[in-house]
Amino acid sequence: MMIVMRGGVSDQQVQEVVEKLHSIGAEAHVSRGEFKTIIGAIGDREKISEIPFAALEGVEAVIPVMKPYKLVSREFHPEGTVVDVGGVELGGETFVVIAGPCAVESEEQVLAAAKAAKKAGAHLLRGGAFKPRSSPYSFQGMGEQGLELLTLASRETGLPVVTEVVDVRHVELVNAHADMLQIGARNMQNFLLLREVGLQHKPVMLKRGLSSTIEELLMAAEYIIRGGNSNVVLCERGIRTFETATRNTLDLSAVPLVKEASHLPIVVDPSHATGMREPIPALTRGALAVGADGVMIEIHPDPKAALCDGPQSLEFEEFERLMDELRAVASPLGRRL
Amino acid sequence: MMIVMRGGVSDQQVQEVVEKLHSIGAEAHVSRGEFKTIIGAIGDREKISEIPFAALEGVEAVIPVMKPYKLVSREFHPEGTVVDVGGVELGGETFVVIAGPCAVESEEQVLAAAKAAKKAGAHLLRGGAFKPRSSPYSFQGMGEQGLELLTLASRETGLPVVTEVVDVRHVELVNAHADMLQIGARNMQNFLLLREVGLQHKPVMLKRGLSSTIEELLMAAEYIIRGGNSNVVLCERGIRTFETATRNTLDLSAVPLVKEASHLPIVVDPSHATGMREPIPALTRGALAVGADGVMIEIHPDPKAALCDGPQSLEFEEFERLMDELRAVASPLGRRL
Amino acid sequence: MMIVMRGGVSDQQVQEVVEKLHSIGAEAHVSRGEFKTIIGAIGDREKISEIPFAALEGVEAVIPVMKPYKLVSREFHPEGTVVDVGGVELGGETFVVIAGPCAVESEEQVLAAAKAAKKAGAHLLRGGAFKPRSSPYSFQGMGEQGLELLTLASRETGLPVVTEVVDVRHVELVNAHADMLQIGARNMQNFLLLREVGLQHKPVMLKRGLSSTIEELLMAAEYIIRGGNSNVVLCERGIRTFETATRNTLDLSAVPLVKEASHLPIVVDPSHATGMREPIPALTRGALAVGADGVMIEIHPDPKAALCDGPQSLEFEEFERLMDELRAVASPLGRRL
Amino acid sequence: MMIVMRGGVSDQQVQEVVEKLHSIGAEAHVSRGEFKTIIGAIGDREKISEIPFAALEGVEAVIPVMKPYKLVSREFHPEGTVVDVGGVELGGETFVVIAGPCAVESEEQVLAAAKAAKKAGAHLLRGGAFKPRSSPYSFQGMGEQGLELLTLASRETGLPVVTEVVDVRHVELVNAHADMLQIGARNMQNFLLLREVGLQHKPVMLKRGLSSTIEELLMAAEYIIRGGNSNVVLCERGIRTFETATRNTLDLSAVPLVKEASHLPIVVDPSHATGMREPIPALTRGALAVGADGVMIEIHPDPKAALCDGPQSLEFEEFERLMDELRAVASPLGRRL
Repeated sequence: MMIVMRGGVSDQQVQEVVEKLHSIGAEAHVSRGEFKTIIGAIGDREKISEIPFAALEGVEAVIPVMKPYKLVSREFHPEGTVVDVGGVELGGETFVVIAGPCAVESEEQVLAAAKAAKKAGAHLLRGGAFKPRSSPYSFQGMGEQGLELLTLASRETGLPVVTEVVDVRHVELVNAHADMLQIGARNMQNFLLLREVGLQHKPVMLKRGLSSTIEELLMAAEYIIRGGNSNVVLCERGIRTFETATRNTLDLSAVPLVKEASHLPIVVDPSHATGMREPIPALTRGALAVGADGVMIEIHPDPKAALCDGPQSLEFEEFERLMDELRAVASPLGRRL
Repeated sequence: MMIVMRGGVSDQQVQEVVEKLHSIGAEAHVSRGEFKTIIGAIGDREKISEIPFAALEGVEAVIPVMKPYKLVSREFHPEGTVVDVGGVELGGETFVVIAGPCAVESEEQVLAAAKAAKKAGAHLLRGGAFKPRSSPYSFQGMGEQGLELLTLASRETGLPVVTEVVDVRHVELVNAHADMLQIGARNMQNFLLLREVGLQHKPVMLKRGLSSTIEELLMAAEYIIRGGNSNVVLCERGIRTFETATRNTLDLSAVPLVKEASHLPIVVDPSHATGMREPIPALTRGALAVGADGVMIEIHPDPKAALCDGPQSLEFEEFERLMDELRAVASPLGRRL
Repeated sequence: MMIVMRGGVSDQQVQEVVEKLHSIGAEAHVSRGEFKTIIGAIGDREKISEIPFAALEGVEAVIPVMKPYKLVSREFHPEGTVVDVGGVELGGETFVVIAGPCAVESEEQVLAAAKAAKKAGAHLLRGGAFKPRSSPYSFQGMGEQGLELLTLASRETGLPVVTEVVDVRHVELVNAHADMLQIGARNMQNFLLLREVGLQHKPVMLKRGLSSTIEELLMAAEYIIRGGNSNVVLCERGIRTFETATRNTLDLSAVPLVKEASHLPIVVDPSHATGMREPIPALTRGALAVGADGVMIEIHPDPKAALCDGPQSLEFEEFERLMDELRAVASPLGRRL
Repeated sequence: MMIVMRGGVSDQQVQEVVEKLHSIGAEAHVSRGEFKTIIGAIGDREKISEIPFAALEGVEAVIPVMKPYKLVSREFHPEGTVVDVGGVELGGETFVVIAGPCAVESEEQVLAAAKAAKKAGAHLLRGGAFKPRSSPYSFQGMGEQGLELLTLASRETGLPVVTEVVDVRHVELVNAHADMLQIGARNMQNFLLLREVGLQHKPVMLKRGLSSTIEELLMAAEYIIRGGNSNVVLCERGIRTFETATRNTLDLSAVPLVKEASHLPIVVDPSHATGMREPIPALTRGALAVGADGVMIEIHPDPKAALCDGPQSLEFEEFERLMDELRAVASPLGRRL
């Protein structure tokens, strides 16, 4: 932690900062320049970060030097983590494709989608049973019945299931049906939910909040791991910017940055990022090329009739074509499908 | 709803849209231009909005014409709503000042803050017992004990209490101690929590999410009102932008826009928006001048020792000075303190 | 400047940084912590800032401690600057109202607007002769003829004129007709234009770029002052954010922040920020309340027929009403109109 | 153009809109719904867009249906454009790599970079002679001497040169030394400069402004083409968002979207987008995979000593390795280097 003191700071103000540091057993390195005085704080970072230096007189800025996370960092855990989801390895050599409908709508629909996913070579089945929607007037998901249909589809196809949990009271219920629990973008900083999924051991897919920085995403993962569950996979799904051509702006730079900062696997969700079907094949190839460990793609037997996110869902044939493309490119990129 | 068809659309594609509309009893007005064809959909807007037109062939864009909210809209309820919080009217002539510490830290601290708030002329007491924090290593609040201290401070001063509820399982508990339930910015789209506070009748302070549009804020309020509770007060508290000089960018334009679109009261929280003490008096005067119904301001007996948000907390003396300034300006602005 | 070295940095890498600093006569204060090593650089800030520390091995981050500007800073020049524009003082006690049409369209139009501005009590006349427009198919301004009409309107009413210069080749020409040269938001970082207006002494109104930070705005002003012209007035006119309810998001926090960081006057342009008429009175009152030195407001004899920005232009009557409101509030805020 | 009228609009207000349309020879299709009335305007879009409908009484919103650009659109010109830059085809089968230093600093430096670029297989040489910098205290480029060094380096290596023009007065000068004129991000909406480069026929590399939408980028290209020069290549180089981990957020979605909307080639500049060396190889592969026609990459013989953007410059060896990677992936992606 660096504490920058305003120009014209008094000795006493500097001393006040130094004493706060000494009081918690930390060291203070004072550098006096012509215009500014800078105090370097060396010691237990958690204790240091609890002192409200910015509220002390004469303090102009407090600059954190250490990253605020630890358990998720590559410094702490240099080897990349591989998360096992019902036998599928996320973070290994395989570029994992997670496919399925936005929402479970009926037995027929989810079975069709699961079979199409399986046939095209996808590794995991996605599908939402509980849908948080911006409008109270939109379809909110099938709930527990939707979970049962996912279990059915999984049994029919052998594909493990990823599905979202939105309610702290439902963790156990969803757990009983899913191979991986998804925390949606809107819940990335729902710390209660993070704590609950951290108390069990099922793998967790943590989606980046649409206005969250990469550092905040990693801090959210830190909550889960600190709770005891280190089976966390991150998901880049677009951030909110001024650009309106796409629903959100897919931040593919996040992939190499996360890979450098953390040992956790990261996948990309181009469907929610763009909100439209057309650019999805290109962005999926892009995700593979920048080093993501997988993608999450929405497919639907009849996008025109979808109750949720039809415009961004691929038809089965488009999805098969995309899988073929990925297979052609994976090997020179050091991956396999 | 307007459906814009791509150039070169076929008659059959137009017909497909028209038939979808007829199937739900809506009318279709087709306007064929040289380059584009536009179809106006007239009928039940909820039914119309459920059809995934954007997934139909030939459709270039779907443009909603009606606002997606209803119960919160001024069209639906032309009179401004006045919300009674323990006898204090929010949305009336009084410019309501809500003051208190970011977090309840001790009996001594919360009592001191409550008395200072009362003495300076504030109307409501704020204070957090449950604190959602980005880092699992930061102070998370005193929990139930904090609620009890708020009740104590309220009894001592006569100030009704506003405090945040973060957990769906705590609504009843917080309700027992608070005169107004606050939904924090990170929970603005926690639809489960919105539903729970909509099922009881205590007034709700709904803070704008830091990356939420004004329309999304109004939709979140719609969730609560639709649940049965129309005692909702909105709160502008800054949005996330590229500017890093302040923690967030306070969007004071939201105040006149919300006043035009909705009948709900709106207050401003300059403390969380800026994250620093210095600009708070100016922005509080600004909030009064743009027509807000009140402000929410953090004060602390000793900001240098605060466990949370010290840098943005006013000292009691600063707060008193600010209240004096507000009193001088309120009357020519048609308000009173 | 603080240079933060990665964990596990070698002595030689630290030494390389230290030697770079010594080579330009600067001092290096090395603080070694358990995880990180921090080097404080003390010396001539311009020389230090030219060394690409971030490219050296072992360097994790380079954190500037000094602000990059000097001539615009309040530290350098503690007294507030008052800029005289044809006898009108910007930065003094008067809250200066600049009014006029977006673009000069005809003699009749500009005369009508100038007279209405004068009658309502505005201090300066604005109007564009050269209009940079996003579309090559939109009205681009009347050019030199527009300047002549502004001069005419100024002579008729006695109001000094503010008008935009967009072309480095036109500085002299615009100078001959204007009492204040405006640099538009899109040109805030057109450094050639900044240099040209810095070489003459006419006051300059520098508008904040729509994606510029406050620091970048101050750096742009530094360019002008460094050129020799210290008659600079800043203008907050909204920044680009994800919110689409207004054209841009007016950042009123910028006013107190600029006042603290700099000695330059600052005005607010609510017309361009919002792009709509309705919230302008509220935001103008807000600008006065947060401490701005003035506002810039678009008025038009017939907004429905305006060639540019009609929707955000006030009718004369609305403008008069607004001026009356401002007069009622100015005095308790320590201002006069 | 759709004009949406407020609820409770009068017949006369609707009539006023209809008459405005008839007055310019356009048709009006009126759809009256229960709550809203919508008027579709069919006719000459340029004439229609000049009417300030939003300023008319009763008008709630004006929704453009047609894209505001024409000459750049794929509807207008279905075949992809191939731009010839000194014999190198941009927009064809080759994935064009443009490499070189951020700024020309010396003969030795630019020759070394040009030779390294050539040796590794790059197609074009980049390098800035005029550098617009946020600080007046930073290195501003070598000017005309820099151009001469670029010409020398081009002659030595046979690589055509891309260099930025920042001053309308320099177009001819830069033209004499460059095979392609670059318009920098800050100048994307410098319409005077766009007009000047539109009046000559040298290819133009138009970089996206850091807060410009894709539509605004296309409109800027429209300015150039409308001036008579259709040799325009677009460049995605990152947009400004709340994320601070990278300097800007590279928007790779822009590539497939531009390809769909326009016939112009588009390249990607990961160096300026991220401002750091580490993620550049990954993002370059990403650019190739999403369908870009090329990339622009900064290389430097000694990044630690660079006068500009050292931290984002690749060393020659890193660049060679990257070129090898690209060659391995290009063919399955239907490209060649």
